[in-house]
Amino acid sequence: MRLAVDVMGGDHAPDAILKGCFDALADLPQGDELVLVGPEGLIRETMREHGVRDGRLVVEHADQIIGMDESPATAVRSKARSSIVRLFLVGSGRAEIRADAVLSAGNTGACVTAAIMYMKRLPGVLRPGIAVTIPAFHGPVVLCDAGANPEPKPTHLWQYALMADTYARQVLGIGSPRVALMNIGAEEGKGTDIIREAREMLRRTPDLNDIGYVEGRDFFEGVADVIVTDAFVGNTVLKMAEGLARSLFNAIAQEIMAENPRLALEFEPVVRRIYAKNDYHEYGGAPLLGVNGACMIAHGSSQPRAIRAAIRNGLAFVRTGVNEAIVRRLSSSAAAVRAPQEAT
Amino acid sequence: MRLAVDVMGGDHAPDAILKGCFDALADLPQGDELVLVGPEGLIRETMREHGVRDGRLVVEHADQIIGMDESPATAVRSKARSSIVRLFLVGSGRAEIRADAVLSAGNTGACVTAAIMYMKRLPGVLRPGIAVTIPAFHGPVVLCDAGANPEPKPTHLWQYALMADTYARQVLGIGSPRVALMNIGAEEGKGTDIIREAREMLRRTPDLNDIGYVEGRDFFEGVADVIVTDAFVGNTVLKMAEGLARSLFNAIAQEIMAENPRLALEFEPVVRRIYAKNDYHEYGGAPLLGVNGACMIAHGSSQPRAIRAAIRNGLAFVRTGVNEAIVRRLSSSAAAVRAPQEAT
Repeated sequence: MRLAVDVMGGDHAPDAILKGCFDALADLPQGDELVLVGPEGLIRETMREHGVRDGRLVVEHADQIIGMDESPATAVRSKARSSIVRLFLVGSGRAEIRADAVLSAGNTGACVTAAIMYMKRLPGVLRPGIAVTIPAFHGPVVLCDAGANPEPKPTHLWQYALMADTYARQVLGIGSPRVALMNIGAEEGKGTDIIREAREMLRRTPDLNDIGYVEGRDFFEGVADVIVTDAFVGNTVLKMAEGLARSLFNAIAQEIMAENPRLALEFEPVVRRIYAKNDYHEYGGAPLLGVNGACMIAHGSSQPRAIRAAIRNGLAFVRTGVNEAIVRRLSSSAAAVRAPQEAT
Repeated sequence: MRLAVDVMGGDHAPDAILKGCFDALADLPQGDELVLVGPEGLIRETMREHGVRDGRLVVEHADQIIGMDESPATAVRSKARSSIVRLFLVGSGRAEIRADAVLSAGNTGACVTAAIMYMKRLPGVLRPGIAVTIPAFHGPVVLCDAGANPEPKPTHLWQYALMADTYARQVLGIGSPRVALMNIGAEEGKGTDIIREAREMLRRTPDLNDIGYVEGRDFFEGVADVIVTDAFVGNTVLKMAEGLARSLFNAIAQEIMAENPRLALEFEPVVRRIYAKNDYHEYGGAPLLGVNGACMIAHGSSQPRAIRAAIRNGLAFVRTGVNEAIVRRLSSSAAAVRAPQEAT
């Protein structure tokens, strides 16, 4: 099996990405290979610097970069030699080297655009969605959609629920995931027409542990394993949670230093343990569910550890047959909720 | 000046609400009065228990309660003797006793419904919005809308910006508030059509310190004083932030106890100081901006301190003439952004 990595994507590219790939060799299953997509000279040079010589590393040359802030559609159309476009050519069997899965920590919008353009959607899928695994305090929570579709229709939300549920079962090993729709109140009748219609579809879906609505406050309370929402809410709460956690730890550090610098030393291992237990790096890489391929999107600020975890995750995605299960699931559930494929 | 309080609203009603009112007497300006709306017998009994005898406390009898989970429209229509309906009759000059401002920690939807029904909207206002003041680490941030309007049109968002800006100036004393629209990316061109259209209107608005888009991560970074969004996102991020902060402190407490129980004792004042600095109780009470009256909505879990602060806040709202300023502001800005009143 082969996984291709965009060496130039992310705030700490290329160093952190390449380092993550080198580290990943240690847990790469027998017979698997990594395709490093980026400027060949730079990649070979970095390998030499790190003393890495490994036949399982293949290089695919790409000498353009799509910046984090570039407009996705324009960039993908105009930069054919960019690491992102080359990545998806490799990942969709359109290049000489082929890969079963791809990974990028670069421009998310460009990845989504290129994934849909080159990998195409899975049969029956209307709109792909990004499923981010959040290390909450009670265990992982899968949030979908976290960035692909800011204005989903009810059928899109319904498909996100089924796809994220399948992912949670196959890759995270959660037995019967509790699936919830994000709403502004837990009571029936709350929210927008779109939410209420999606709720109705979920209620009629067989073999789904649908627990109804959750609110923002339930996010970290361990009441749901899968939370479905639109990309606007999903992306905003993710980024807000990141910012708040960082600000809180900073505030605590400042207060501790003011109180008693000696206390700061004793407090450090506490913070380190909390970080270790709730570390998004461990779940590095969020799959873009619904495309006909395995596309992992990593956090822009990914460090080597996150890249290594995302590689593991991407290979598990292919190996456990998530896409095949999604296609079966959507087609077998469609009848129960009045042929959603037609309700676009 | 008179402020009426719904004694039966909130998770800790009536005790915490009444205690808050009693405490508020200490800082009630000369000549001001509080109208306590709820079951007269219970109110008088509680006053006796607390040894409170004060001519500035007026009782308005109401013997029904609208529960936190009742459907707002139905409840307001069917419970004419509820504390919420009586509150708004008092606050809109339709009862024998009149009040200049009202406050409830009860069912938010019912308060919004009753406020619009009895107080009516201010001239030119299309949809009222709730403005919550969040004690972020760098200073207060006003978030509007936090719960009234889940599907705002661009003109609604534009009005929220102007109204919240006016509130931040008049009541919070922020000189030239930095006003931002919540989006899923800081770059121009990101987000939905609704967001982009609201952005265009804000850009053309005179005397507004419009700083463009902010993302979820900017919330606690001190980049904006006023953040405008829809009720779905606003409510979700607020509740999520609450849940995350609580979970984080719990996690820290557990880790500290596991590490070293003595450390827990030393850590306690640190946590207490952070809470004191970032305490939403201090900003208790969020105004429903855009109604022709002063309607303060308090957090359902309000304790006496939050109620006391909300009373202070409600009286300041009236005294500083926020509504008059809003009406002037909307009418003088309308021309610059192509008659928004017509663009409903």
